[in-house]
Parts: sequence; C-alpha cells; structure tokens
Amino acid sequence: MTFSSKLIEKAVDAFSSLPGIGRKSAFRLVLHLLKQDKSVTQQFTTALTALREGIRECRVCHNLADDEVCHICLDPRRDRSLVCVVESIRDLMAIEDTGQYRGLYHVLGGVISPIEGVGPGDLHIESLEERVRQGELREAIMAVSPTIEGETTIYYISKKLLPLGVQVSAIARGVSFGGDLEYADELTLGRSIVARVPYEAR
Amino acid sequence: MTFSSKLIEKAVDAFSSLPGIGRKSAFRLVLHLLKQDKSVTQQFTTALTALREGIRECRVCHNLADDEVCHICLDPRRDRSLVCVVESIRDLMAIEDTGQYRGLYHVLGGVISPIEGVGPGDLHIESLEERVRQGELREAIMAVSPTIEGETTIYYISKKLLPLGVQVSAIARGVSFGGDLEYADELTLGRSIVARVPYEAR
Repeated sequence: MTFSSKLIEKAVDAFSSLPGIGRKSAFRLVLHLLKQDKSVTQQFTTALTALREGIRECRVCHNLADDEVCHICLDPRRDRSLVCVVESIRDLMAIEDTGQYRGLYHVLGGVISPIEGVGPGDLHIESLEERVRQGELREAIMAVSPTIEGETTIYYISKKLLPLGVQVSAIARGVSFGGDLEYADELTLGRSIVARVPYEAR
Repeated sequence: MTFSSKLIEKAVDAFSSLPGIGRKSAFRLVLHLLKQDKSVTQQFTTALTALREGIRECRVCHNLADDEVCHICLDPRRDRSLVCVVESIRDLMAIEDTGQYRGLYHVLGGVISPIEGVGPGDLHIESLEERVRQGELREAIMAVSPTIEGETTIYYISKKLLPLGVQVSAIARGVSFGGDLEYADELTLGRSIVARVPYEAR
C-alpha cells in the first residue's frame, strides 16, 4: 500500500504494530478516525495516555489497578479466606466473568518454565507465601493451565504453602459441559474417569 | 467483561469504538500496550494526534495530504493531461497500487445518490470542471463503482465536461482475470460479450 501522506503512513504503522491488525485494517481505522470529529481521536489518545501513565500493579495480588491496591483486594464483600492463584490477569478476568467465585486472587505473572528460562524467582510466589503467612487465608486454589509447566508450578507452590498450614486445592478438570465425549482428549477423559464424583455429591 | 480498573475500561471502550474491534480484541490490544514500554503508547498516540491535527485535503484533487497540495499533484513525473475521477481515497489508493496509472486524480467524495440525499453539489464536481477549464487536461477517466449511482454520476459529469472539450472515458468492465466464467454475474458477462475487444487490439 502506498500512502499519499506521511502522517497517514505513520498512523497506519502505529495501528499495524498492534497484534492482529494488518496494514489494510490499520488504514481502515485511520480513515475511520479521519471521518470522525477531532475530539474522537483526542478522547482515544487521552484514554491510552491515561492508561499507560496511570495504571499500577496491585501491591497485594499483582492485578492491574488504578490505585496502590486493586478493587478486588479492597472489596469488603469478598471472602478473605480464599485466594485463587492464576497465571495472568486474563485468567483472573475469565474467572471473575463466571460469577462463581467471591474470594481473592493472586496473579503469578506466568508459570515455571525452564525451557523459556522462567524460574520460581521470576513469578510472584514469594509475595503469595507472605500473604499466607499473615494468617487470614484458609485455602489457596490453584487455577493454573493444565500443562506440564502448570503442574510443575502447582507442585512447587504447594511445597511452599502446605507447611504454612494453608489448604491447597486445584480447579476441577474433566470433560467440558456440552462437550461430546468422543471428542474429548484421552488424558482429560481418562482423568475424568479416575476422578469421578459420586452422584450425591453434586 | 468486568475490568478491575477504570483506566483499562476506558482504553477498552476507546479501542472497541473503532470499526471491527470487539471488546475482547480491544482488551488484547490494551494488554499488549501495557506489556510494551511506555514509549510505544506514546509513539502511538503521538502519531494519531499528529495525523488528526496535521492532515489536510489537497486543494487541487481532494486527496488526503500533509500540505496544501498532495504529493501526486506535485509530482512532476505525472502525466498532467490525464485525470482519473474516483469516489474515495481508498479507490485512489487501489489504482495507485496497480502501478498502471501515472496521471492525476480527482476525488469526488462519493457518488450521486438521491436515496441517500447526495446531490451533485455535495461532491467535488465543480472543482473538477474548474480543473478542466484550466485547459491542461486532455482526458478524464471515470473510475467509479459500476452501480446505478455510479453510472448516474458518470452521466452527470460527462454532461458537464464534454462541452469543455475534454475526452471522457470509463474504466473497462468485464470478467475478472483468473475468474471462472460460470461464476461471473450475468450483467458483467453479458456486457463483456457486447463490449468484446478484437484480438489484435490487445
């Protein structure tokens, strides 16, 4: 694509540097902004600048926050005896969106992965231990990806937390709701049989 | 989606107000910006602000330009006897990208459409007449969409330009290169037979 304007070219470069946006889509976005009033672009850039300048990491759980402590950690209606340990803020949001969990969170910032050079020291594990040591937490729910790295991470964290007298659990794994049994992978299906639940327990 | 931060929510709102970007994609873009250095967001917003503040419409052809006159109108290697009349800047760019045309352009800003309330006065037709009157142009090539509105626009413009002694032509219509004849629409296929070209002429 050849642009008649350096200004357009730079704006297209800016948009197409974002993931999933090619140069054609970027140009479409640029034309869209040009069609709108100047104030639209201004609001857009103001929102991004405010975000980038103002955003912080929650001092307690490492969630993204507007202030020193995030609104989940501050919420008095939350169950302060439960902490759900997640890899990323996206996973935190996915769990929040289920509406099924009312405890606190702890964002690790990844999983232990020797291949990618991520060791326990690169994750927020120490601050989790610190939170547990403060004594209010009763259970730590590991909501980490069901991968080898995830299992390694759960193993490592449980070794650290169990001696501190907190209960460690992992989210249930099994076949998806609405999923077809024949299409479930062998490992998941196998595990779901081994970890079967008595009908009364539901 | 529930966001833990008002700043994130506003940034997501900003991105998802753009065409073709939903809230999930918007959040992915926001997280991407947050992962990058602050300077990336700054460059991004600077490019957009510079664009919106600095962009102009070319005084001659109504293309988008950085200065009063666009770089195509200023280019001395362009054939100044040819003008290609297009609906939009996107069409201009599509023709530029073919690399087959070295004349000038004139952007109408749309087509005559009584249904949508667009009359000849809403388009840059008068300035085209003015350019033709200046006498340098020899031919005006109508590169307008093959729709009823497009044909109406071509008819209207040709009525205005022909008395001024300029040649008016329209881009060739027919079956696409690489297209399968059986899938071509009847109108196009019919026209391509009526407007057949002697083999020697190629």
